[in-house]
Amino acid sequence: MNYSIIRYIIGLILNMEAAFMALPMVTAFLYKESQWWCFAGTMVICVAIGILLTRKKPTNKVFYVREGFVTVALSWVVLSCAGAVPFVISGAIPDPVDALFETVSGFTTTGASILPAVEDLPKSILFWRSFTHWVGGMGVLVFLLTLLPLVGGGKGHHMNLMAAESPGPSVSRLVPKVQSTAQILYSIYFAITLLEIVFLLIGGMPPFEAITHALGTAGTGGFGVKNDSLAGYSPYLQNVVTIFMILFGVNFSVYFLLLRKRFSQAFRSEEIRVYFAVILLSIAVITLDIRHMYDSVGTSVRHAAFQVGSIITTTGYATTDFNLWPQLSRTILVLLMFMGACAGSTGGGIKVSRIIMMVKTFRREMRLLIHPRSVQKVAMDGKAVDTAVIRNTSAFLITYIMIFVVSVLILSFEGHDLVTNFTAVAATFNNIGPGLELVGPTQNYALFSGVSKLVLIFDMLAGRLEIFPMLVLFSPKAWKKF
Amino acid sequence: MNYSIIRYIIGLILNMEAAFMALPMVTAFLYKESQWWCFAGTMVICVAIGILLTRKKPTNKVFYVREGFVTVALSWVVLSCAGAVPFVISGAIPDPVDALFETVSGFTTTGASILPAVEDLPKSILFWRSFTHWVGGMGVLVFLLTLLPLVGGGKGHHMNLMAAESPGPSVSRLVPKVQSTAQILYSIYFAITLLEIVFLLIGGMPPFEAITHALGTAGTGGFGVKNDSLAGYSPYLQNVVTIFMILFGVNFSVYFLLLRKRFSQAFRSEEIRVYFAVILLSIAVITLDIRHMYDSVGTSVRHAAFQVGSIITTTGYATTDFNLWPQLSRTILVLLMFMGACAGSTGGGIKVSRIIMMVKTFRREMRLLIHPRSVQKVAMDGKAVDTAVIRNTSAFLITYIMIFVVSVLILSFEGHDLVTNFTAVAATFNNIGPGLELVGPTQNYALFSGVSKLVLIFDMLAGRLEIFPMLVLFSPKAWKKF
Repeated sequence: MNYSIIRYIIGLILNMEAAFMALPMVTAFLYKESQWWCFAGTMVICVAIGILLTRKKPTNKVFYVREGFVTVALSWVVLSCAGAVPFVISGAIPDPVDALFETVSGFTTTGASILPAVEDLPKSILFWRSFTHWVGGMGVLVFLLTLLPLVGGGKGHHMNLMAAESPGPSVSRLVPKVQSTAQILYSIYFAITLLEIVFLLIGGMPPFEAITHALGTAGTGGFGVKNDSLAGYSPYLQNVVTIFMILFGVNFSVYFLLLRKRFSQAFRSEEIRVYFAVILLSIAVITLDIRHMYDSVGTSVRHAAFQVGSIITTTGYATTDFNLWPQLSRTILVLLMFMGACAGSTGGGIKVSRIIMMVKTFRREMRLLIHPRSVQKVAMDGKAVDTAVIRNTSAFLITYIMIFVVSVLILSFEGHDLVTNFTAVAATFNNIGPGLELVGPTQNYALFSGVSKLVLIFDMLAGRLEIFPMLVLFSPKAWKKF
Repeated sequence: MNYSIIRYIIGLILNMEAAFMALPMVTAFLYKESQWWCFAGTMVICVAIGILLTRKKPTNKVFYVREGFVTVALSWVVLSCAGAVPFVISGAIPDPVDALFETVSGFTTTGASILPAVEDLPKSILFWRSFTHWVGGMGVLVFLLTLLPLVGGGKGHHMNLMAAESPGPSVSRLVPKVQSTAQILYSIYFAITLLEIVFLLIGGMPPFEAITHALGTAGTGGFGVKNDSLAGYSPYLQNVVTIFMILFGVNFSVYFLLLRKRFSQAFRSEEIRVYFAVILLSIAVITLDIRHMYDSVGTSVRHAAFQVGSIITTTGYATTDFNLWPQLSRTILVLLMFMGACAGSTGGGIKVSRIIMMVKTFRREMRLLIHPRSVQKVAMDGKAVDTAVIRNTSAFLITYIMIFVVSVLILSFEGHDLVTNFTAVAATFNNIGPGLELVGPTQNYALFSGVSKLVLIFDMLAGRLEIFPMLVLFSPKAWKKF
């Protein structure tokens, strides 16, 4: 294990977080809130430790998959701990575990909250909550990579870092240079976020709310600034958010292809097609199922589309309490929770491409049973998938189930009902936010004990980082010197 | 596809089922019940069709995996349809779908019932219900194999048949000849069943009840002859059933090794160790969790042990309503539902050996992430596992989840709560019997519609035959002539 480079990157992360906190501090000044010092104080601490850790440049620049995983996992833990400080010292969330839960929920773009009401909180604190979504959505290390080359050696080393943080079974390098790839991704991300702010402003949303909601949509997070999430806004504003949620769930390499005018290649993507097919089908079925609950077909479609977009992209905004919907709609939403958005998007969940790969693995097995001696390959977008990726997808599924089972088991010590525990784990592990029953869209996660919250914090981080980085972080073998 | 041999075997199955029905007919004579003609009538129909199908011996004796799967799946469907006839014509279960549900539940050793009360049924009908468990437990085609060589060619052809019906990821041939293996298995099965009857008689259970309960335990089925299952019997009798349930969940090759005095080899089996460790641990935790609900520690241990043994072996007998237990115990039981018993036993579920293989696949992936260039093998009982078995285990898990999801989705059209739907599918797909809430131990499956019952019938068959045979049966590609 190359300790010096890990130390160095953690230092950079802390410095960067201090820079991020300048934004909520400015917000505090603008709204003449006294909380500016909470951010200023945290910034001083971050920079102090950051400078200490980055003073000595790493001599050894070797950076393997192992280092990539540990660095990413550790970065996210450090980022979350430091990010929780303003919540604690401002008194907004005095309990440290609660504050950590809220911050991890922010950075992992989960959007699960322990706060029963948010409207009374200072604007600067609300802004920081939403901003963590935006930073976590595309990734902090990807952000660092846009600024400077972090690790030496070949391009493979940079990919080890980016792959560990990017969602999905495999990372596509858009251009040969990793730093340029990171810059392109963040440019697209920034542009679409800006576009959403403009559309929300056109609909008459106040600037502060437009910005925070756009940040939350972009990261597919779900923290709002209103107690009733998006329920109080006009149909136009709700539809704008629906469309942008779905857009942020698309694999960003598709936008890159569109920018390069490689349209046919962009539309050939199997993942995108399945993603939109599932969305349209779910909206249609749910609309029929909830039709009797609302005045008009239009209203039913709007609520169905919003909730489907919110759940499949793992955002977690709500315009209505889907906990009260009929069983069929509730079941579809629970299934969408697990599916999640496209790989290479800001959304969470298992990812559409993994689901496709699993279905294809199943089909191959069926063909092999019928023709045992034939050669059967799994292909994606017309290209054969590497057996290592298939193996990893299966291992991912197994590990996913194991963590899920253990989490539900630990939560069940508290005695809440099975649906609450099951959907609480599903909603945090898949980075969605609201579950069903006691953790439904109108409820919050304050009911759980500290131990259960720590389990859910682990699940949120494991979900965002696609499990393995967090497990490698806690594996003693990974920390041995080689 | 070799149609002639499939036709021939289906004919033999029908003849064999007619022979089986002689037993309930004798029971009807003994108890002077008028229902003897229901069995006699069905026997005539079975033999008539059976003779028609077996009149011409198959010329082509080629028998591949494909033929094995289709034959096994079709045999079970035919067996169940014919087995349902006495229920319908005797008026015990007039509705054909209900009767099919009950029969499939019997043969697949699920034990899920649509009957609210069983004590009023004729003894011959009750015997037939329990006897289907015994026949289905070890397998009908394995039974046929004890009598005569079914297919020509090498031993591989016979293995294709046996492998398709035996539970678990791989079948171990105890002795070189498949027919002898089948005979040894059925001898052990018969001997342990007899032993249980003796122990139950010693405890003062009336002979009819001792025989039916032993048949239900042996097949890990769960149909009882009392409305309150095993709740009304003495602690001694409950403990006897607990021990025999757990014994029938053990891989039968272990008994073979014990008979051959190969003790060290028998006790080295990883699956057996994990199986007993999980049982003991679950009993300990549940005993502590339910301690406050019962008079003494002894009673708590007895109820915990009975329910754990009943659920992990997928039997489904009950001595108490675990639906009323605390959440932790309920969650543990739901997890045990999925784990199931050992491969090569009469129990259902995913099987302990598959779970072990999945954990090992996960560990290998972790090692590969830390040391990407090392060679990592998955070993079981000290021997490297064939990559085809690992691939098949992953495909099994994926397929298992797919069928589970689709089943829950179809059931949710009816509007019952999520826990009912989820555990109804879990309890039928894993061949257990009772679930939670509306399908809990004191409830039954009559509340579902015909469509949902057909889905659950498919799940029971798919669960018993380990999914793939049922899927191959419905795959048009498998039916093409080659």
